[in-house]
Amino acid sequence: MKPGIKLIISGPSGAGKGTVINRMLKRLAELGEEVYLSISMTTRYMREGEVDGVSYYFTDKPSFERLLEEKGLLEHNCYNGEYYGTPAAPAEEAFAAGKIVLFDIDINGGRQIRERYSDAVTAFLIPPEFSLLEERLKGRGTETEDKIRHRLEIARGEYAAAADYDYVVVNDTIDDAVDELLSIIAAERCRMSRREKLLRI
Amino acid sequence: MKPGIKLIISGPSGAGKGTVINRMLKRLAELGEEVYLSISMTTRYMREGEVDGVSYYFTDKPSFERLLEEKGLLEHNCYNGEYYGTPAAPAEEAFAAGKIVLFDIDINGGRQIRERYSDAVTAFLIPPEFSLLEERLKGRGTETEDKIRHRLEIARGEYAAAADYDYVVVNDTIDDAVDELLSIIAAERCRMSRREKLLRI
Repeated sequence: MKPGIKLIISGPSGAGKGTVINRMLKRLAELGEEVYLSISMTTRYMREGEVDGVSYYFTDKPSFERLLEEKGLLEHNCYNGEYYGTPAAPAEEAFAAGKIVLFDIDINGGRQIRERYSDAVTAFLIPPEFSLLEERLKGRGTETEDKIRHRLEIARGEYAAAADYDYVVVNDTIDDAVDELLSIIAAERCRMSRREKLLRI
Repeated sequence: MKPGIKLIISGPSGAGKGTVINRMLKRLAELGEEVYLSISMTTRYMREGEVDGVSYYFTDKPSFERLLEEKGLLEHNCYNGEYYGTPAAPAEEAFAAGKIVLFDIDINGGRQIRERYSDAVTAFLIPPEFSLLEERLKGRGTETEDKIRHRLEIARGEYAAAADYDYVVVNDTIDDAVDELLSIIAAERCRMSRREKLLRI
């Protein structure tokens, strides 16, 4: 059995993280790799079309707070009065089974997870040029100018905060970005910290 | 231009380093990558069939010692009264030109190079099982029992000393080992230390 690996992928809004992760999941499946994409837990109401355990794990506030107290969440935050967090149990189970455990999460969440798992690998996805973020956000046609300006402000903060990430992945083309992420997974499996037992003779 | 990268590959006698490096050079050429395989300098006599600047750079002792004094050697050692060393200039020129600079060198030499270049990446190549080293050395049919025992003693020391290397590459099949090395190169190019300028906006 290959050893499990934990990979945290963050990136600013407009970097194309969702598309890249979806393509990566497809490529990993073709390679016969077992992957667990971490699912967040939330206390907000379930929207039309959402499925419990797929979109999110939906729960109530007392249960969320109990889990938090038991250190059962790898990271959490509060948004519009509702909790969001990453449950530890499914990620740990998948890791123990030798799977690639992916966390699609913002920089703050990524940093919290890394504090808990010092062996987690962190990758920050960016477009080739910062100006492309604005273009892509405008291209969506769903956001007001104000909202776009706000998102770009947040992105600037994320770029500054990403300095403690291990890797920068450039989303030039989707396949190039996926290639980089697959190389990172393959290389990290060879790292001394994960293979030093092979040197014990 | 892609940034250059310095990769040090070490491994015990019998690990198949020469074969793996040759296959890797072929694969990198197919990928259109520019590679410089570092050539050692020596003061020993040139043997039949050897070519200056290909097998080794051949030089005399005063020249070698002058280069050493000028810090023009990345590492050096003395064997049977002759000097061997790695000249800095060709490696630095290749690195500045964005090439992959490969050092095929023993653990002691690798460590000396890393002291000089903190950004050098180190990989230790091993067979899947230690016992295979003995089999491969015996299979060559060119070495006495005593010499094989001596080589295995050295290998044991190298396994212990390799703990400060960055990566362990397993030569299960040649292509698997080359895949691991290519992933390491690709991933290292994405490392924060090499890409942080992309975050300056």
